[in-house]
Amino acid sequence: MDDRPIGIFDSGVGGLTSINAFSEVLPHESIVYFGDTARAPYGTKSPATVRAFSREIADFLVKQGAKILVAACNTSSSIALDAIKEDHPDIPVVGVIKPCAARIAEVCTPENSIGVIATPVTVESGAYEKEIRKISQELNVHSIGCSAFVPLIESGAFNTPAMDAAIKHTLDEFIRENQVDTLVLGCTHYPIIRPNIEKLFPWLSIIDPSMALAMEVRRILTRYGLLASEWQGSRMFYASDLSSKFLGIIQMLGISGDYVLKQHAL
Amino acid sequence: MDDRPIGIFDSGVGGLTSINAFSEVLPHESIVYFGDTARAPYGTKSPATVRAFSREIADFLVKQGAKILVAACNTSSSIALDAIKEDHPDIPVVGVIKPCAARIAEVCTPENSIGVIATPVTVESGAYEKEIRKISQELNVHSIGCSAFVPLIESGAFNTPAMDAAIKHTLDEFIRENQVDTLVLGCTHYPIIRPNIEKLFPWLSIIDPSMALAMEVRRILTRYGLLASEWQGSRMFYASDLSSKFLGIIQMLGISGDYVLKQHAL
Repeated sequence: MDDRPIGIFDSGVGGLTSINAFSEVLPHESIVYFGDTARAPYGTKSPATVRAFSREIADFLVKQGAKILVAACNTSSSIALDAIKEDHPDIPVVGVIKPCAARIAEVCTPENSIGVIATPVTVESGAYEKEIRKISQELNVHSIGCSAFVPLIESGAFNTPAMDAAIKHTLDEFIRENQVDTLVLGCTHYPIIRPNIEKLFPWLSIIDPSMALAMEVRRILTRYGLLASEWQGSRMFYASDLSSKFLGIIQMLGISGDYVLKQHAL
Repeated sequence: MDDRPIGIFDSGVGGLTSINAFSEVLPHESIVYFGDTARAPYGTKSPATVRAFSREIADFLVKQGAKILVAACNTSSSIALDAIKEDHPDIPVVGVIKPCAARIAEVCTPENSIGVIATPVTVESGAYEKEIRKISQELNVHSIGCSAFVPLIESGAFNTPAMDAAIKHTLDEFIRENQVDTLVLGCTHYPIIRPNIEKLFPWLSIIDPSMALAMEVRRILTRYGLLASEWQGSRMFYASDLSSKFLGIIQMLGISGDYVLKQHAL
């Protein structure tokens, strides 16, 4: 038994889309979340900068007593995990991409055409393809970097014609040319625009990695004997910038249960 | 005579749009520029965060020997100048909004309908209206916060249908309802999308504050005896994140003459 919190981080508000999955799968766990809203977005910045920011966040979460470090952020997961593991060799470090790849291999067959949408940094890293190939050589995977989505979502413009135009412009040709039937939301921000995507491409099966990530974390906590006692855990959300827009997105996500919200600059 | 550099800063690449104006108006001056690309955008973050970041940059530029601090960034100019002046009482501190307001009052009459487009933070500060009202009570000024423009530009999406859709969606009603005939680019990033705006609203007169800012800096340097000697100055551009996208935007801006480019994290 270990009542220390699970440390989860993201480049901004995106990672909060996975909080409900964690509450469902691990209801007794305490969570300390850090969203780097003051420096978001990550996915269009250089890998060195993303790595440096991710390590700073991991250090902060460890100081808050995290018993496991969870990179909800796909961009960080694709390029910063090794550095974080080196900094904290005594703490399990989990990214979102590996459990999502396992989930894809579970639900897809070689007849499917899988489309991974992610930030440019994630796509350039090839992390999704690598993890999927490790499990199966036969799956058809195509990836596309969507540089405009996160900035538009972080600016609060998710429910606008501009967002729809950006999605259509970025994905239309990609989906048709590759005959994509299964779309992986390879960025924690994309569940926020899932309604827009479903409206524009209603025939797609959509995979949101949140649940696979929460299940993987439960598996690791169980294996290492790190699960919390049988009571309701607390939830503390830190953001490096607590703007009114950020609060609006939290509200829009409909996060269930209690939480405390704090600003903390790194 | 004072051969120390002019210190110019912006939230990201935007301020570089004013570099050619400085080179034209002040050809002998050395420039040290800082673009906070690792933490851009600013205009959708909270005033406290923007103020803290702006002060860090000002400190850095003073350490680089800046003889004057120029906030090319409208967002910083609208809310961070007083804090920077307090930190550096012995150095002139200039923002872009005041000289631009003077320029507007010079070229517009009460018959004009002036539309200021800027980031949400700049618009909420009311800085443009305040500065214009100080000069003239009779001018008709309307402002609108454009949260999606900078994120889209910083993501490299300035030449896409998504950018056009964002501009049309944000400005169409604003321009028609207020019968705007003169549009002020109240953010250093907007000159990058000036072609998009001119294509969509070809009847507008457009005011880019760069030249007014460079002229104001020349006036101050002259007044305080701080002009450089009669030789070609050097130009050093720092960015907190030097991504390939950043280099692409620099190239696209067509900055004339030599410059040195360096990464520096704050």
